[in-house]
Amino acid sequence: MNLLISISRNIYPLDERSKVRCRERWDNLIHPKSTLGSLEDITEQLSGIYCSSNLEDNMKKCVIAFGSDHGVYEEGVSAQTQEITRLQFENFTNGKCAVATLARCNKVDIVAVDIGINSDDPIPNVIDYKIRKGTRNMYKGPAMSPEEAVKSIEIGIVVAEKCIVDGYKIIGVGEMGISNTTSATAILSVMSGKDPIDLVDKGSGISEDKVRHKADVIRHSIEINNPNPTDSIDVLSKVGGYEIGGIAGVILGCAANRIPVVLDGYISYAAALVAYKINPRCIDYVIPSHKSSEKGSKTALDILSIKPYMDMNMHLGEGTGAVLMMGIIDSAVYTYNNMASFDDEVIGRYMGPKIINN
Amino acid sequence: MNLLISISRNIYPLDERSKVRCRERWDNLIHPKSTLGSLEDITEQLSGIYCSSNLEDNMKKCVIAFGSDHGVYEEGVSAQTQEITRLQFENFTNGKCAVATLARCNKVDIVAVDIGINSDDPIPNVIDYKIRKGTRNMYKGPAMSPEEAVKSIEIGIVVAEKCIVDGYKIIGVGEMGISNTTSATAILSVMSGKDPIDLVDKGSGISEDKVRHKADVIRHSIEINNPNPTDSIDVLSKVGGYEIGGIAGVILGCAANRIPVVLDGYISYAAALVAYKINPRCIDYVIPSHKSSEKGSKTALDILSIKPYMDMNMHLGEGTGAVLMMGIIDSAVYTYNNMASFDDEVIGRYMGPKIINN
Repeated sequence: MNLLISISRNIYPLDERSKVRCRERWDNLIHPKSTLGSLEDITEQLSGIYCSSNLEDNMKKCVIAFGSDHGVYEEGVSAQTQEITRLQFENFTNGKCAVATLARCNKVDIVAVDIGINSDDPIPNVIDYKIRKGTRNMYKGPAMSPEEAVKSIEIGIVVAEKCIVDGYKIIGVGEMGISNTTSATAILSVMSGKDPIDLVDKGSGISEDKVRHKADVIRHSIEINNPNPTDSIDVLSKVGGYEIGGIAGVILGCAANRIPVVLDGYISYAAALVAYKINPRCIDYVIPSHKSSEKGSKTALDILSIKPYMDMNMHLGEGTGAVLMMGIIDSAVYTYNNMASFDDEVIGRYMGPKIINN
Repeated sequence: MNLLISISRNIYPLDERSKVRCRERWDNLIHPKSTLGSLEDITEQLSGIYCSSNLEDNMKKCVIAFGSDHGVYEEGVSAQTQEITRLQFENFTNGKCAVATLARCNKVDIVAVDIGINSDDPIPNVIDYKIRKGTRNMYKGPAMSPEEAVKSIEIGIVVAEKCIVDGYKIIGVGEMGISNTTSATAILSVMSGKDPIDLVDKGSGISEDKVRHKADVIRHSIEINNPNPTDSIDVLSKVGGYEIGGIAGVILGCAANRIPVVLDGYISYAAALVAYKINPRCIDYVIPSHKSSEKGSKTALDILSIKPYMDMNMHLGEGTGAVLMMGIIDSAVYTYNNMASFDDEVIGRYMGPKIINN
C-alpha cells in the first residue's frame, strides 16, 4: 500500500512552459496554425509530460500486457473457454498473436506479465507476478481481497518502473483474460451509475441471449458486493480483475515518472477509471488510441474526458489499438522535428504566423 | 474526352471471390472473428481490388499531389496570399512541408504535379501539366471551360497510370491551392443542395466575418453559373479547380486499373464527389483516411457513404491524412500476412471458428 500511496501522491501537472514552447515551435513550422490538429496536440502533451519541448524521433516503445483469469467465468459469460487465456498469452511473447504481430510491424516491444492466469505451468518469456490462479467468482462474493487489489496495482507500478529504467519512453497497455469484459463492465457500471444492460456487449462474440445473461450476472454481482463507487480499491477488489489493477498501476506508475501511457480499448478504459479515482491527474499522462466498439465505451470515455484518435471498429484488446497508435505518435514527433520553419524559408515572409492569424 | 470515357467505362466491381478468401483467412487467424474490425475490412477491400487474397507486405506507396491556383482568390476568401501555392509546392519535393515530412517517416513517395499554378517559373522535380495559370474567377463566370475540366481529370488519369506502371500499389491524393476550400465547398453545395453557409468553414484560418463572406461568394458563384448537379464536368468547370479535377482523375484512373486510392481531407472529398457522379463504382476503390475538421465534411462523406478511420482534427490538406493512413494500411496487411492461424496452433482446438461462433 505504501508504494501505491507514494506513487499516487507523486503525480504532478504537465509542464506548461514546455507545452507553450512546443506550441511556439509548431506555430513557426510552415503550415497554417493548428491545422495538423491532434498531431500537434500529441507532441504538446508529450512536451508537458517530459518537461521538455525537445522530443526524440523513434522513441523506444513497449506495450505492457497482463494476463489473468476471472472467477465469474463459471457463470457462462464468455464465448471462449478459460484455457484460452494461457494458450493465447504464450502467443504474446512468441510473436504469433495480433498484438505481437502489430508490435513487430510498428517496432514496439511486448512486456508480458502473468498476474493471475489459472495455470501452474510457467510461460516462457512471461514475467511471473501471479497473485492467484484467477480471481474468485464475483457473482458469489468479492473477486479478490483488498490486499490483492492493492497488490495488482503495485505490480503494474513496479513493471512500469522497470520498463522506464530499461529506457522505454512511451508505454502502452494490453491484456488477455477470458471474461474480462464482464469485470470491466461491472467497474464501469459501478462508477457511472448506469445499469449493466446499457453498457454490456458481446465481448469476444456471445449471442444476444448471453449478452442479457451477462448483464444479469453483473447486476447481481454488484448487488451482493455493494462496492463504493468513489473507492477504487473497493470497486476493483469486489468486481474487478488482476489485469485491470495491473493496467491501472501502469497508468499511475507512468504518470508519477512522467512517461506517456497509451491506452488500448475497453478493458483499459475500465483500468483508467480505477486509476482516475485514485488520482484524476494521471489522465493527463494518458494518450488514447482507438474507440473500442464495445457498447460501454462512450460512457467510460466521457467520464475520463478523453477522445480516441481512431475509430476502427476494433474490439480485440490485447493492446492492438495501443500499438497502432504508436505509429501515429512516431509520425507526430517526426513531423514536429523535421518540418521546415518559417525562419528557414522564403515562405516565411508570406505565410508566417502574423499573416495566418489575421 | 475519349480517355475519360474509356476509363470510366472500365471500372468493374470488386472481386467477391478474393474478398471471401481474405475473410476466410482472417477467420482462421488466432483471434475472435472480426474483432480486428477495420484492419480486416481494409485487407478485404484490397483483396477485392487486386483480385487476389495474397497481399504483399510493405507495398510501394505514393501520394499524387496537384498544385493549382483559383481565380476566386480575388474575392478575398483566403487567409493567405496566392504566392503561397507556388512557394509551398516547392516544399512538396524538397521534403520540407508537412506532407513531405510525414511521407518520409512513412516510406511514401510524393509525385507532385503543377496542374495550374499561377507562376511562369518551372518548379524543380514537379511534373508540369499546367493547364492555365490558375482558374478564372467563378464569382464572375465559369472557373474553366468544359474542355479544361475534362483535361484536368485526364491529367489525373495519366499521372495515376504512370505511377501504376512505375510499380506503385497504393496511391494517395494530395493538393496545394490557395482558395481551394472555396471551390471544394462550391462543388459540395451544388451536389448536396445545401446552402454554402451550412458547409463553409475557416479553410487555412479566416475570421468568422470572412467565413460569411466566403459563403456569400460561393452562393453568388453558383447562382450566376447555374451548374447542373448531376453533371460532374459542368460542376467542375463552373465552380471547381484544376487540382480537384486532377484528384478526381486519379480516383477514376486507380479504379480502372484496380489500384486502391487513399483519400485525404476536404478537398479530396469534393474530388471524390466529382468522380462519384461520373461513375459511382469508383468509390469501391477508395480508402478513406481521416475526417477533416472542415464543417462540410460530414455532408460529403454521407453522400459518398464512406467513414474515415481517424478523427485527428486535421485540416491542412496537402495529403497529410492520406500519408498517415498508409501506416495503418501497412499494419493491416502485415497482421493479415503474419499472424498465426488456428491450423498451426494448439489454440485452434479451443478457440477455432466453431467455438467462437457459438
